[in-house]
Amino acid sequence: MAPDSKSSNDLLLHNSLRSISYKRGSLQLLDQRKLPLETVYLDIQDATDGWNAIRDMVVRGAPAIAIAAAFSLAVEVANFKDFNGTSEEAASFIELKLEYLVSSRPTAVNLSDAAKKLIEITSNVASTSTMPESVFQAYIEAAEIMLDDDVASNKAIGSYGSRFLRDQQKIVPRFSVLTHCNTGSLATAGYGTALGVIRALHAEGVLERAYCTETRPFNQGSRLTAFELVHDKIPATLIADSAAAALMKESRVSAVIVGADRVAANGDTANKIGTYSLALCAMHHHIPFYVAAPLTSIDLSLSSGEEIVIEERSAKELLHSQGGLGEQVAASGILVWNPAFDVTPAYLITGCHY
Amino acid sequence: MAPDSKSSNDLLLHNSLRSISYKRGSLQLLDQRKLPLETVYLDIQDATDGWNAIRDMVVRGAPAIAIAAAFSLAVEVANFKDFNGTSEEAASFIELKLEYLVSSRPTAVNLSDAAKKLIEITSNVASTSTMPESVFQAYIEAAEIMLDDDVASNKAIGSYGSRFLRDQQKIVPRFSVLTHCNTGSLATAGYGTALGVIRALHAEGVLERAYCTETRPFNQGSRLTAFELVHDKIPATLIADSAAAALMKESRVSAVIVGADRVAANGDTANKIGTYSLALCAMHHHIPFYVAAPLTSIDLSLSSGEEIVIEERSAKELLHSQGGLGEQVAASGILVWNPAFDVTPAYLITGCHY
Repeated sequence: MAPDSKSSNDLLLHNSLRSISYKRGSLQLLDQRKLPLETVYLDIQDATDGWNAIRDMVVRGAPAIAIAAAFSLAVEVANFKDFNGTSEEAASFIELKLEYLVSSRPTAVNLSDAAKKLIEITSNVASTSTMPESVFQAYIEAAEIMLDDDVASNKAIGSYGSRFLRDQQKIVPRFSVLTHCNTGSLATAGYGTALGVIRALHAEGVLERAYCTETRPFNQGSRLTAFELVHDKIPATLIADSAAAALMKESRVSAVIVGADRVAANGDTANKIGTYSLALCAMHHHIPFYVAAPLTSIDLSLSSGEEIVIEERSAKELLHSQGGLGEQVAASGILVWNPAFDVTPAYLITGCHY
Repeated sequence: MAPDSKSSNDLLLHNSLRSISYKRGSLQLLDQRKLPLETVYLDIQDATDGWNAIRDMVVRGAPAIAIAAAFSLAVEVANFKDFNGTSEEAASFIELKLEYLVSSRPTAVNLSDAAKKLIEITSNVASTSTMPESVFQAYIEAAEIMLDDDVASNKAIGSYGSRFLRDQQKIVPRFSVLTHCNTGSLATAGYGTALGVIRALHAEGVLERAYCTETRPFNQGSRLTAFELVHDKIPATLIADSAAAALMKESRVSAVIVGADRVAANGDTANKIGTYSLALCAMHHHIPFYVAAPLTSIDLSLSSGEEIVIEERSAKELLHSQGGLGEQVAASGILVWNPAFDVTPAYLITGCHY
């Protein structure tokens, strides 16, 4: 895994910033740890490179992780010069490599779901063909379909979300929208969910302005969402998370659109810490609050948001600058409560569109 | 104005951290720019030292600024070896020096109010006495009374606030309280307003825990309030501003107490950005929301909060770490909206106690 200096400028010329750049036999991942100050793509040659990139946070966002993992193995098998084994052995090889990749981020549901599907496809091929090449070919094609599906799903969310918003607010010619955290090209295979809706509104000429929060403590908003918005030349303004209520009071936003980490069967939605506060403030100001997420975010095994376990993250994210990576900011000795997510109850969500 | 190394430890031995350490003829100011990593007091010998300390943000918080300015002149005149002039000339000297001090932070109302009162006192003495020493003595005594009055006023706010809270919530034996920004010893002559109430609750043994927000973007909560709470050994936890709603949902706070920058005649209150969001979240969770402020914060010339002009601060506070003083965090080219304050309407404030 080495910086691929020559490709980064070319990649940026595409219309939307991509966290994952892939063509058959070749994979580069945008190193999100270096954003927004440096745009560096790392060349990924095999599953080991993929595993390291995921564990080291080169790539983040549940859909993006799943696809980066699948592709790291796809480039490895695409570049095989000689595989001495049966088709069953090829399928076993893929299964073992996928299990290894899942271990890079064990709690990422999208990654283990994707691995299960890919293992099923390749073992089916192995049971009907004796050629190991057929197994690898089937794997590569399945991984490529996953990427296409994710982008297509995001574009559908964007297009549907944009049309829905325009239908809801026929009188207003242009919208200003507030979003939280990063739900864009950097968190998905491309385009994004909530940020996909913003991209669609912009493409259709009805976006007045996007507002993004800093998204403390890890600054996904100021680092990543702001970066995507500037990159795509979308009119955009950054605010402190705590300034959202004042923004709403001044009637500067027509809607709030966020993504979802997990949606329970009753519609309660877990998302980045601060989402619940935005939903409460939006309700008070009669501003519609929407969740834009793919079907894969819904977990029907959870009857309500109360069953969602909230991960607590390191105190250092608040005690030091740059989400814990920089210098000490806070007073020594202070305790910290740093939940990664909160749960927004379904009744605060105007529309949950999957 | 030079660091006074020998005094800092002695000063910290006092029961509450002081931003202003004064005895007649001697003044040290805690350099708040270096907090929380270093506790350094600067020796202030005259009005010029005071002017520089205020302009350079060594001392902040409207009440603290007024007293620091008054005392910088008090030590200058206390150490006069020979003043060749009449009592009228002594009064003129004081008036000129106070006007100069007001120019260090022209928008600080407390500072210009204090200067007016001190000029009146000294000119009255000059009109009845021919001794310049009497004028200086009157000035010094008046400045000392200002400090005592500010501390006494804060202690009264703390004691009243604590008693009020206990009366309101007779069933609950102990309270957990959330506060925002810094309203403690560092912003006042000592003890603090909202943080004074927390200090009083703790002193009376009824405080379970204080929660303080980071207070983005300048981190007054994580740097200063957390520092005061740790210093005073008050059980305390720091949260991201955006985590307050989740904290309330978990029933972990019994009340929210904040200070005020300015209160309009109808009770609408301007305070640090994010206060309004906390008030909305508190209302939704049926948690009482209190403002603790001295009478001097009320501006009867403003009929409502709509007349309060909100200062917008530098984009750099969000774009760079450490409130603008550190490295770049946010994406280059993003616009920023950075209001310093928001206005909480009176109907969201459970009790406004002066």
